[in-house]
Amino acid sequence: MALRVYNTLTRKKERFVPREKGRVFFYVCGPTVYDSAHIGHGMSYVAFDAIRRYLEYRGYHVRHVQNFTDVEDKIIRRAAEQGMPWRELTAKYIHEFLAEMDELNVQRAHLYPFASQEIDHIVRLIQGLIEKGNAYPLDGDVYFRVKSDARYGQLSHRNLEDMQAGARVEIDERKEHPMDFALWKSAKQGEPSWDSPWGPGRPGWHIECSAMSLRYLGEQIDIHGGGRDLIFPHHENEIAQSECFTTQHPFVKYWLHNGLLQLGGEKMSKSTGNLITLREVLDTYGADAFRFFVLSSHYRRPLTFTEDSLQAATKGAERLRSAMRPARLDYDPDVDATLLLQQMETTQSQFEEAMDDDFNTAQALATLFDLVRAINQARDDGLGGEAFLQAQGTVLALSRVLGFRLAPRPAQSSLGASPFIEILVKLRRELRDNKQWALADQVRDALAGQGVTLEDSPEGTSWHTK
Amino acid sequence: MALRVYNTLTRKKERFVPREKGRVFFYVCGPTVYDSAHIGHGMSYVAFDAIRRYLEYRGYHVRHVQNFTDVEDKIIRRAAEQGMPWRELTAKYIHEFLAEMDELNVQRAHLYPFASQEIDHIVRLIQGLIEKGNAYPLDGDVYFRVKSDARYGQLSHRNLEDMQAGARVEIDERKEHPMDFALWKSAKQGEPSWDSPWGPGRPGWHIECSAMSLRYLGEQIDIHGGGRDLIFPHHENEIAQSECFTTQHPFVKYWLHNGLLQLGGEKMSKSTGNLITLREVLDTYGADAFRFFVLSSHYRRPLTFTEDSLQAATKGAERLRSAMRPARLDYDPDVDATLLLQQMETTQSQFEEAMDDDFNTAQALATLFDLVRAINQARDDGLGGEAFLQAQGTVLALSRVLGFRLAPRPAQSSLGASPFIEILVKLRRELRDNKQWALADQVRDALAGQGVTLEDSPEGTSWHTK
Repeated sequence: MALRVYNTLTRKKERFVPREKGRVFFYVCGPTVYDSAHIGHGMSYVAFDAIRRYLEYRGYHVRHVQNFTDVEDKIIRRAAEQGMPWRELTAKYIHEFLAEMDELNVQRAHLYPFASQEIDHIVRLIQGLIEKGNAYPLDGDVYFRVKSDARYGQLSHRNLEDMQAGARVEIDERKEHPMDFALWKSAKQGEPSWDSPWGPGRPGWHIECSAMSLRYLGEQIDIHGGGRDLIFPHHENEIAQSECFTTQHPFVKYWLHNGLLQLGGEKMSKSTGNLITLREVLDTYGADAFRFFVLSSHYRRPLTFTEDSLQAATKGAERLRSAMRPARLDYDPDVDATLLLQQMETTQSQFEEAMDDDFNTAQALATLFDLVRAINQARDDGLGGEAFLQAQGTVLALSRVLGFRLAPRPAQSSLGASPFIEILVKLRRELRDNKQWALADQVRDALAGQGVTLEDSPEGTSWHTK
Repeated sequence: MALRVYNTLTRKKERFVPREKGRVFFYVCGPTVYDSAHIGHGMSYVAFDAIRRYLEYRGYHVRHVQNFTDVEDKIIRRAAEQGMPWRELTAKYIHEFLAEMDELNVQRAHLYPFASQEIDHIVRLIQGLIEKGNAYPLDGDVYFRVKSDARYGQLSHRNLEDMQAGARVEIDERKEHPMDFALWKSAKQGEPSWDSPWGPGRPGWHIECSAMSLRYLGEQIDIHGGGRDLIFPHHENEIAQSECFTTQHPFVKYWLHNGLLQLGGEKMSKSTGNLITLREVLDTYGADAFRFFVLSSHYRRPLTFTEDSLQAATKGAERLRSAMRPARLDYDPDVDATLLLQQMETTQSQFEEAMDDDFNTAQALATLFDLVRAINQARDDGLGGEAFLQAQGTVLALSRVLGFRLAPRPAQSSLGASPFIEILVKLRRELRDNKQWALADQVRDALAGQGVTLEDSPEGTSWHTK
C-alpha cells in the first residue's frame, strides 16, 4: 500500500513521494505568541503530530521546522497594554506553548526559528524580490507585486479579481494593486524595529515563513502544514514570495490543511472572545482525552468543541486504556487465541490502510477499537498468556503511533496545594488584622510544618516552598 | 562512523553488520517469573533498552523477542510454598514485571513467548536433536550429548575438561558425559507436565530460548543479549542446541552480555537474601535516576549499588533536566550563540561516537553533560531564543535515545493538597470553638470554592472532593 495525501494545491489525493528517498522536509506554521494557546492550536498541532509520527512509523526521517511569530501587530499591541517588553511577552508565551505541547505529547520540532532572529535572512529575501521585480519599496515599506507572479492564486484557486471581491482590502492608493501585500513595514514610534535598506522597520507576517523554510529546509520541501484559515492569504503569499525568489516550482510539494475548530457550532475566535485555552482543557480532561477528541475526526474536517464531545473523548481514551488491563491470573491456556490473533493482524493492516488514506485517524481509531473489544472479550473468556500480551502490545504500539500515552491520569487523584496555601495565607492576614496573634502564629507554624515558609512585607505576604 | 559492538563469541569489538540490511533480529533473555523483579533485572533491561533505542536511532528496524520462563524448578517450589497454582504465580509476576518495565520506560518487546505455551515447538526441536544424534532419551528425560558438538564451549571459551573442573556437576552415572544437560525432564508428582514422545514431562531451562529464537526470529539472528551469568551454561547450551538442530553457524552473530549488579561490593543473589526489589528503587528514586545509575557505567562493567551511587544518579538525572529550564524572559538577543551551537554540534557527534563504540552510554552522558553545562551557562549569560531552544531540543532528543523521560517527578514538584486542607479544617473548628462564625464560614466557603466540601458530625468534621 502506498501513502496518499490530500494536496490543497492540486485539490486531489496524491500518492506521497518525497523529493528525497526516505526523507521528509516538513514545515508547520507556528503560533503568534501574544497569548496562551487555545484549543484550536491544540487541535492543529496534535493533528500534525499524528501525521509526523505516522511518517516516522513508515520509516521516513522527518525534518520538522516550526516558526514562532514573535514580531507582529497583535504582539506589539498586547505588550503595550500590559506594559511589558514585547520580547518578554513572547518569551513567556513561547515557554508556555512548549510546556503545553510537551504535556500534550506533541513531538518537538527539530528547529523553532523566531521571526525576530531571522531578520538578516528576511531582508536578503526581500532584496532579492526587489531585484527580480517582484517587490517594490514605498515610503519605507516594501510591497510584493502580485501582478508579477503569474501563478498567484494557485493554492486558494482564485484569481485576483475574485480575491478583491472577497477580501475586505483597505484601499491604499499608493500601492500598485490592492492585493499587493507588505513584506516590510516601516517603524512607527515605540515599535520594535531593525535597520534595513529601506530604513528602520520590521518584517510583514508572510515573509518570515518563506525565509525560514528556505533557510532551514531548502528551496523545495515536501510538506507544509497549517490550518485552513492560513490558505489565503498567508500560504498563498508564502508560495508567491518563495517561488519568485528561487524561480523553483513547486516550493512545497504537498500542502496539508486542517479543518478549523468551532465552539458549539461557532468558529472560535479571539475577536469575539469565544475562546477556550488549551490549559483549561488539559487540566479538565488530560492530554489523551483531548488527543482522542482531535483524532476521532479526520484532520481536514471542521471539529466542534462541546462538553459532550470531550466527555465522549474521555471515555474513548479510557476505552483504549481498558485493553491494557492484565489478563486474569487464573487464565486458561487452552482458550483458543486464533480469533484474537486474527483481529490483531486485521487491525494492524487496517490501521495502516486508514493512515495511508490521507491520515484517516478516525478510521485508524475505529480498527484499534475492534482490537480493544477483542482483547476485552478474550480476557472475559479466560484467555491469557503470550497471545494476549501480543495483542495488548499491538494496541500499545499503534496508540503510540497516534501519540497516546495510555497512562492513567495522575491529575485526577491529586489536588494541587497552592489554592489552599493561598486561603491559609489570606486567613492568617485577617487573623492578624483582628489581632488574633496566637491563631495567626498557629497558621504560620502549621504551614512551616509542611515546608511552606511565609515572608511578610509591606505589600503583603508571599510564600514559598523549599 | 560505523557502529562497533563487543562480541562475547569472538572476544573482540567488531563492526556491526546485521544479516539483513536495515533490520536487526534481537533476542534478550527474559526473567524466570517466580518473584518480584530486583534491581539486577532492572539494570539488564535498561541496558538492552538503551541498546535497542540506539539501534532504532541509527535507522534499524529492530525485531525484539524476549521470553518469560514460566515453567521451572524455582517456580514450582515457590508456587507449592504459597499454595498457589504455578500459572497464577507466574501470571502475577509477569504483569508486575511489565508494569515496572513500563514505568522504567523500557520499550516493550514485540513478542513475549511463554515457555509453557511453546511446548509443541520445544518437543519438535528435541525430537530433531535426537534424530540427528545430538540428544538421547534416558528414563523419560532427554539429554543433550555435548560430545556430539565439536564447537561446544565456543562462547565461554572453555573446553569440556575445564568446564568439569570449574562446575559443581552432580554426578549422574546414567549420563554419557557429566556435562550433558537436560532438554526434557520427566514429570514428578504434582508438577506441571505435558505429554511427549518420552512420556509426560516438562522442558529443561535451556531449550526454550532456542525454540523461541528459532521460531520467532529465524535460524540465524543478529543480537542475543543477557547478563554475564548466562554465558555459561545457558547461552553455551542455547548455541549447541540451535546450531546442531539447524546445522547453521553462527546461530547468533553478536552475543552481548551485561556486567552484573553488586550490592555494596557483594553480588546480589536470592540465595543469600541479598536483594533489593526494583519496586523499592522506583518508589525511592524514580525511573530516570535508576536509569542514570545504570547508564552512567558501561553495560559490560559490573555495577555496584549503594545509597550514595543512587543519590549521585538522582543528581545526575536532575542535572539533565536542569538544561530544560526556560531561558530568562528578559533574555538578550544580542548574546552570541556561537559557542552554544558549537557545543551542540560537538555533543551530537560525540554522542554518536560514544554510542557507536559498543554503546558507551557513560561517555554519551558525559558529552550530554557538556551541553547541559553550556546551556545553563548560556542562560546565565542572558542567551535565549531559537539557538537556546535548539540546544535544549538536542538534550531532549539525545536523552530520549537513552530512554530518559526528563519529566519532573510528580512527587517532588507538587505538594499534595491534603495536609493543607487538614490545617484549614482544624482551624475552622477552632474558630467555631471561639465563636468566630464569620471567619469559620469564610474558611468553609473558600474550601467549597476549591471543590472541597465539609461534613460536620459529632465525631468531628470530614472533608471530601468531587
